[in-house]
Amino acid sequence: MRDIAVFSGSAHRDLAREVCAHLGVPLRPARISRFANDCLEVQLQANCRERDVFLIQPLVRPVQEHLVELLLMCDAARGASAARITVVMPHYSYARSDKKDAPRISIGGRLVADLLVAAGASRVLAMTLHSPQVHGFFSVPVDHLNALHELAAHFRRYDLTRTTVVSPDLGNAKEAAAFARLIGAQVAAGAKQRFADDRVSISSVIGEVTGRDVIVLDDEIAKGSTVLELLGRLRELGARSVRVACTHGLFAAGALKRLSEQPDVLEIVCTNTVPVPAEEEHTDKLRVLSIAPALAEAVRRIHNGESVSALFEHS
Amino acid sequence: MRDIAVFSGSAHRDLAREVCAHLGVPLRPARISRFANDCLEVQLQANCRERDVFLIQPLVRPVQEHLVELLLMCDAARGASAARITVVMPHYSYARSDKKDAPRISIGGRLVADLLVAAGASRVLAMTLHSPQVHGFFSVPVDHLNALHELAAHFRRYDLTRTTVVSPDLGNAKEAAAFARLIGAQVAAGAKQRFADDRVSISSVIGEVTGRDVIVLDDEIAKGSTVLELLGRLRELGARSVRVACTHGLFAAGALKRLSEQPDVLEIVCTNTVPVPAEEEHTDKLRVLSIAPALAEAVRRIHNGESVSALFEHS
Amino acid sequence: MRDIAVFSGSAHRDLAREVCAHLGVPLRPARISRFANDCLEVQLQANCRERDVFLIQPLVRPVQEHLVELLLMCDAARGASAARITVVMPHYSYARSDKKDAPRISIGGRLVADLLVAAGASRVLAMTLHSPQVHGFFSVPVDHLNALHELAAHFRRYDLTRTTVVSPDLGNAKEAAAFARLIGAQVAAGAKQRFADDRVSISSVIGEVTGRDVIVLDDEIAKGSTVLELLGRLRELGARSVRVACTHGLFAAGALKRLSEQPDVLEIVCTNTVPVPAEEEHTDKLRVLSIAPALAEAVRRIHNGESVSALFEHS
Amino acid sequence: MRDIAVFSGSAHRDLAREVCAHLGVPLRPARISRFANDCLEVQLQANCRERDVFLIQPLVRPVQEHLVELLLMCDAARGASAARITVVMPHYSYARSDKKDAPRISIGGRLVADLLVAAGASRVLAMTLHSPQVHGFFSVPVDHLNALHELAAHFRRYDLTRTTVVSPDLGNAKEAAAFARLIGAQVAAGAKQRFADDRVSISSVIGEVTGRDVIVLDDEIAKGSTVLELLGRLRELGARSVRVACTHGLFAAGALKRLSEQPDVLEIVCTNTVPVPAEEEHTDKLRVLSIAPALAEAVRRIHNGESVSALFEHS
Amino acid sequence: MRDIAVFSGSAHRDLAREVCAHLGVPLRPARISRFANDCLEVQLQANCRERDVFLIQPLVRPVQEHLVELLLMCDAARGASAARITVVMPHYSYARSDKKDAPRISIGGRLVADLLVAAGASRVLAMTLHSPQVHGFFSVPVDHLNALHELAAHFRRYDLTRTTVVSPDLGNAKEAAAFARLIGAQVAAGAKQRFADDRVSISSVIGEVTGRDVIVLDDEIAKGSTVLELLGRLRELGARSVRVACTHGLFAAGALKRLSEQPDVLEIVCTNTVPVPAEEEHTDKLRVLSIAPALAEAVRRIHNGESVSALFEHS
Amino acid sequence: MRDIAVFSGSAHRDLAREVCAHLGVPLRPARISRFANDCLEVQLQANCRERDVFLIQPLVRPVQEHLVELLLMCDAARGASAARITVVMPHYSYARSDKKDAPRISIGGRLVADLLVAAGASRVLAMTLHSPQVHGFFSVPVDHLNALHELAAHFRRYDLTRTTVVSPDLGNAKEAAAFARLIGAQVAAGAKQRFADDRVSISSVIGEVTGRDVIVLDDEIAKGSTVLELLGRLRELGARSVRVACTHGLFAAGALKRLSEQPDVLEIVCTNTVPVPAEEEHTDKLRVLSIAPALAEAVRRIHNGESVSALFEHS
Repeated sequence: MRDIAVFSGSAHRDLAREVCAHLGVPLRPARISRFANDCLEVQLQANCRERDVFLIQPLVRPVQEHLVELLLMCDAARGASAARITVVMPHYSYARSDKKDAPRISIGGRLVADLLVAAGASRVLAMTLHSPQVHGFFSVPVDHLNALHELAAHFRRYDLTRTTVVSPDLGNAKEAAAFARLIGAQVAAGAKQRFADDRVSISSVIGEVTGRDVIVLDDEIAKGSTVLELLGRLRELGARSVRVACTHGLFAAGALKRLSEQPDVLEIVCTNTVPVPAEEEHTDKLRVLSIAPALAEAVRRIHNGESVSALFEHS
Repeated sequence: MRDIAVFSGSAHRDLAREVCAHLGVPLRPARISRFANDCLEVQLQANCRERDVFLIQPLVRPVQEHLVELLLMCDAARGASAARITVVMPHYSYARSDKKDAPRISIGGRLVADLLVAAGASRVLAMTLHSPQVHGFFSVPVDHLNALHELAAHFRRYDLTRTTVVSPDLGNAKEAAAFARLIGAQVAAGAKQRFADDRVSISSVIGEVTGRDVIVLDDEIAKGSTVLELLGRLRELGARSVRVACTHGLFAAGALKRLSEQPDVLEIVCTNTVPVPAEEEHTDKLRVLSIAPALAEAVRRIHNGESVSALFEHS
Repeated sequence: MRDIAVFSGSAHRDLAREVCAHLGVPLRPARISRFANDCLEVQLQANCRERDVFLIQPLVRPVQEHLVELLLMCDAARGASAARITVVMPHYSYARSDKKDAPRISIGGRLVADLLVAAGASRVLAMTLHSPQVHGFFSVPVDHLNALHELAAHFRRYDLTRTTVVSPDLGNAKEAAAFARLIGAQVAAGAKQRFADDRVSISSVIGEVTGRDVIVLDDEIAKGSTVLELLGRLRELGARSVRVACTHGLFAAGALKRLSEQPDVLEIVCTNTVPVPAEEEHTDKLRVLSIAPALAEAVRRIHNGESVSALFEHS
Repeated sequence: MRDIAVFSGSAHRDLAREVCAHLGVPLRPARISRFANDCLEVQLQANCRERDVFLIQPLVRPVQEHLVELLLMCDAARGASAARITVVMPHYSYARSDKKDAPRISIGGRLVADLLVAAGASRVLAMTLHSPQVHGFFSVPVDHLNALHELAAHFRRYDLTRTTVVSPDLGNAKEAAAFARLIGAQVAAGAKQRFADDRVSISSVIGEVTGRDVIVLDDEIAKGSTVLELLGRLRELGARSVRVACTHGLFAAGALKRLSEQPDVLEIVCTNTVPVPAEEEHTDKLRVLSIAPALAEAVRRIHNGESVSALFEHS
Repeated sequence: MRDIAVFSGSAHRDLAREVCAHLGVPLRPARISRFANDCLEVQLQANCRERDVFLIQPLVRPVQEHLVELLLMCDAARGASAARITVVMPHYSYARSDKKDAPRISIGGRLVADLLVAAGASRVLAMTLHSPQVHGFFSVPVDHLNALHELAAHFRRYDLTRTTVVSPDLGNAKEAAAFARLIGAQVAAGAKQRFADDRVSISSVIGEVTGRDVIVLDDEIAKGSTVLELLGRLRELGARSVRVACTHGLFAAGALKRLSEQPDVLEIVCTNTVPVPAEEEHTDKLRVLSIAPALAEAVRRIHNGESVSALFEHS
Repeated sequence: MRDIAVFSGSAHRDLAREVCAHLGVPLRPARISRFANDCLEVQLQANCRERDVFLIQPLVRPVQEHLVELLLMCDAARGASAARITVVMPHYSYARSDKKDAPRISIGGRLVADLLVAAGASRVLAMTLHSPQVHGFFSVPVDHLNALHELAAHFRRYDLTRTTVVSPDLGNAKEAAAFARLIGAQVAAGAKQRFADDRVSISSVIGEVTGRDVIVLDDEIAKGSTVLELLGRLRELGARSVRVACTHGLFAAGALKRLSEQPDVLEIVCTNTVPVPAEEEHTDKLRVLSIAPALAEAVRRIHNGESVSALFEHS
């Protein structure tokens, strides 16, 4: 395998630059042009021939623009004789379209996986996919990272002796438990369940939260309504303090503002898998942790043929 | 589309015969031979040319034998110029291998989906898949049935005024809620969660069960240990009576005997997606409902190009 | 082949409705939802099973949104067991990305063709593709219509005895000549040629235009700069009157306003392959011809297995 | 190409260990688990990333179990980013299903070749395939070894001056002739031919066997009935002594016992492409030669990109 | 399935016309042009849309021209939206390249099968393939006819009471035996075997030929050297009379002349799977039987979805 | 990437030998045999395993023979485990079949691209393709060279102060302009345009040619009729001298003789992408430039993973 060549789409160049800085390689320029008819064209502006090419692009808003950009980047790299094309997708938003819960709907998580392969992707580096089955939607190898170490390093600065990690949903509780173990805390979970047809809702919190310092942990926060609902129950149950953490801080529709206005929320922690919210939404309560070192290390291992799973095994 | 031709592998001929009886078509003979070197050979013994071919085979024990048999049947039908090959797989056991929860493991649910397509399958008719994401593992259309109507018809014979449907796992609670709605009952769920790494277990039952007539509903019962554990909690919580129901009654490792020996279990209900347990395991408490009429109706609709989802919409 | 089912994406519902009216079939509803994370989901809200499905969507601004929508519609139709999926794409904007005129650039025209096939398209109905080679980018059958008959019917209302059809570019002159023949006019062509590297430009008009009534004919008008430049030469050469015609009236960046402000331009004629420009840009000089009857006739012939090329043979 | 990683399925670990010993590399552990529902799961327990992976598994009894195991191993290696996956299949039992000699039968030899490729195999190393055309069933490169050198080395210990190599079937006579040349012997062949429909049988031995020391050579011995029939003719024709040799010693249905009980059979020679028969079937007349050194040398050459055919050219 | 459309390449239009006459459908015109640069272009000159298209072309001399022609015909039919494309290939000459008997050689039989599928062929109708394994080289359905009925009908005009059918090679003896059974004759076979490496040759005739009326039957006669050699042995053994028969009468390099000059050869019988030899080679001894009725019947059954194997089952 | 292995088909061995000489590697032998039935077989006679294989073959007359030869060479290299197979196709004659300008015709340029990939080609090295869109017909990377540097080096020997480069067709004018810039000349173009339907022809020369030394430059010359027609106009316009240059000197149908007999044509220059015309057609006016050094340099860069586009960037 010859030299590495890292390119970024327009979705999150800051992250790409940071990954490259950690790798000690330049971020190669990519020209993304828009024609008068609104079509895009990509030119990778460094030699890709027999190179180990990495294309960094989380699928964030505007998702469709960034997706087509990424597909065109794959196509350009393939046409330019890349030895291998790894799509580094720190946030795969289409992963939430993972099942057919109504007749005749698209399964976007599978379709986009197929499109990436059709455009030339040889492998994928993803982070905290919405459901583990999404891994199986890809016909090429996937390395699946999570941000638990970064989050743990952050929270270890606090006194964690009375801490409980709470997953808003039992479906995500396995990750919360792993995180709790990492920081020596207890675990609990909200047992909220939405039943589409009949609105029956089972709601409770399983595990001890009364008088505890709670860390709410979710994979992503978009509109934040699930977390807000959970906050209500935690108040009723007498939690001592609340911090909110997630990997993907999408914060759509004013979610960051709404969450930070909750007086008992001491802190909101996310990572930079997606771009940091714009100035006007900023709040002193927000802490953004960088997953660039982890991505850089995974890229380095992929390039060198070292085990990526080993990164997570002895923790 | 010309005539229909239905064949059965050796996994569950009784079901195939029953489906054909409901369809009013003959079950076509298929010769499955084993050579001295243990290899299998399939001969479909009726014209398949431009026919709409249906191959009925649940992936039950011995799973590997039945899988290879099914692949050879697909190959034979394709080579014999079938117009369309629908794999009718009332039980897809490999669906449980749906994620990569350890490094370097196979994802059997996706692999087998790909093998079926490689062998010539044009579409799949499945029943109560273990997780809804498995649908997305197939690159061909899948019709996904459930057995809730059959189970509901059975239980409506009882007085259901004080009934609660209990899902052993919240992951399956959506199906339990749909079932509860069908029979006008309440819903509850066991919040048992196994965490592989650290054995932390959150266990409770969410919803009212004290003094209620409980129907435990799961998608499949193999060794039955989850259900047995739930029965313990139901006893502690003072359930008035217990019935156990599932779609796929695999009953491995003496599970049927063990369950039927529980004095407070009044009845064990399953369907015939898999073969009925052998004589020696039989118990008066077992009721096996036939999903053959539902499969036959789905086959008929597939053959005629009618909506299968409509079967489930207005219920 | 069973019943037809026609759906429209959100790019140009008016056209889809008009096509359906001509076909005498209903336009089936398609729900296109956007999640909080900006991802799209499509639900086709009518039975597709074994139907002959037509998806109408020109790739117009916002192109990326409409492209992903179309891919999701293909995926939904495939998963819903459509017998055949014909993408009706009256304007294929990515067709202009048809060559690799710089190192390491994407060839969008080929990539999008591959993506459509990966998403399930079985065939394509296109109109006035930018270059005829784009046809070869598709691995599925393409029916390629043009709008010359519609344009001819419009212009026959005028006295055409002194008319010359002028193609702004010799590359498009074959189509102009065919059109001239249809309306019994002469043909001429601008010999403008941009040479990217050295700006050498050969500019002239080949053929008689002095004292003639000119119809400028191009495949599409986006920013309109080529046509504006040609108008200058026509004035110098003493053309008597000028009308401007094209198939795809994209009119980006105020092009419609700029063209209609030219005092010697009597009329601007385009078709509705793309949506009609918004109110504020409207001008009395604009005439929009409908290609819905032609699309409807082509759809009817595709559905019935009749020759589409025959539509164009005896004209 | 980076380091080699060799794994074995459960079919023949002894052979795999022996190959690794000759290569001087460790046999990497592979966990093969069976779930309660009889499904298999494979975990390769050593880093495969960018490794040159070799999976050793002859398709022996139980064939279906070993085949699915092998497919899951391929899938696991592919998902674990192996640079190349070579299936080392010393015995390919499905190779005998190589033609369609009845309507609507499966062609297992082609199907299994396709399944291996669908599961991720990049190449195959096989030994003494039943017919040379089977090579063409694979769409990936195949290295096809034979065991003639090993057999020749064994027989050279005897006085071969009056030896004739006899192929039971003329279809296999080319291999017998090559072997005869290797050991400086004459060649003969049984002209037995089974005609399925009408039982017409042409039987004779072509070539000199009277008073000769005969070595019967076949590619595989399963039930051994062909060889037993040939022994009858050899007795009638007055052969002086008989030894029986083959590559694949399957010895099904008591074949080994039956052959060894023939008083005039001095020796039965096979190789360890398949596991050595169990204790109770053992006989003093059996000699099992190891093809592990040959497989190891072929693996070494494949890994190093050296010619494998050269192994056989100058002999 | 809508109307049938039959086209012929330039290899054997007479046969195509005859097949069409038997089917009662017109042979549709196909224009095959050659450009100044020696490239070919095909235009199918009748509507193919949703038609059941049959392309008749044996791969005869000049083979490469006819192969590329056929591939272009497939491409044209696919692009013209044929519902199904059946390649009718009465002679598949590349079938003889079916194994890898030397390092680094092409396996043309498999490659050409893949090329036909890549060009759009949906199925193949072949006749008397050189080895039955070639069937497995195709990934699409193959119907495999033979000409034994036509040959039998011809020979039944003679007194067959003392007739023996002789196959020049035991590899082809199964077909000779089937033929002998059809006409109530005995069977014999030449045991000639060429061993490429060491020129050891086993030569004899197995079965009774002395004083018999011999019909030599082979699949094809190209240079005829094998048959000529067999004729020598038959003379030595005192055959009473000799007739020569084959399916594919290629007669290369003066073979027809050489064979007809043998005084004891009473008749040479072949079929018209390939064009009849040119005038100058003609001989009174040649009888060419037409397989057009059999091809027509197979085409009719394929078009109607009836069993083709049934054609051969009860004979 | 291990060692390089270069092979030549039979189309143009002289060129292959020359390329190898420049590379300093041997031209490896390839045996191309023709069987009695006119089928071809290829044997590559040097180790290809894990080698970087280059197959040199322009598609020249007899095109079909050379195409099938090339496909068989790809197949042999793939079966022999080549690490990468680059088809070096200095002349791609099928590139002219690049559009569907009539119903139901083949698009040979796309089909042959697909066939090469189906046969195993991993990439293509082409020269002066007829239209730039043909690049997009390939699903594998293409390096596209031109011969302008070679032509420029040749013409720089002359006094070029009054030189005009004339493209016979505006479609090719961009290349002429690039060439003119290289040699510091002016540019002009014939505006000849054939309109298939109605024979309307626009003919003129755009740009200054009167009293100029003209170099007519085209991509290929086959029958030469376009150039001859242009020569007439140049005479009328009073060009001072004429030289004719092209990349691909096919010279079919006596074109070379006809051109050289024009008294005012001082010189005819082409390259050796195709074989030099046979003796009898030779003329003193012909100069054949070698593109072997350019091909060799491109092969070297491909092998080493260096940029090929860089070859053309700074000129």
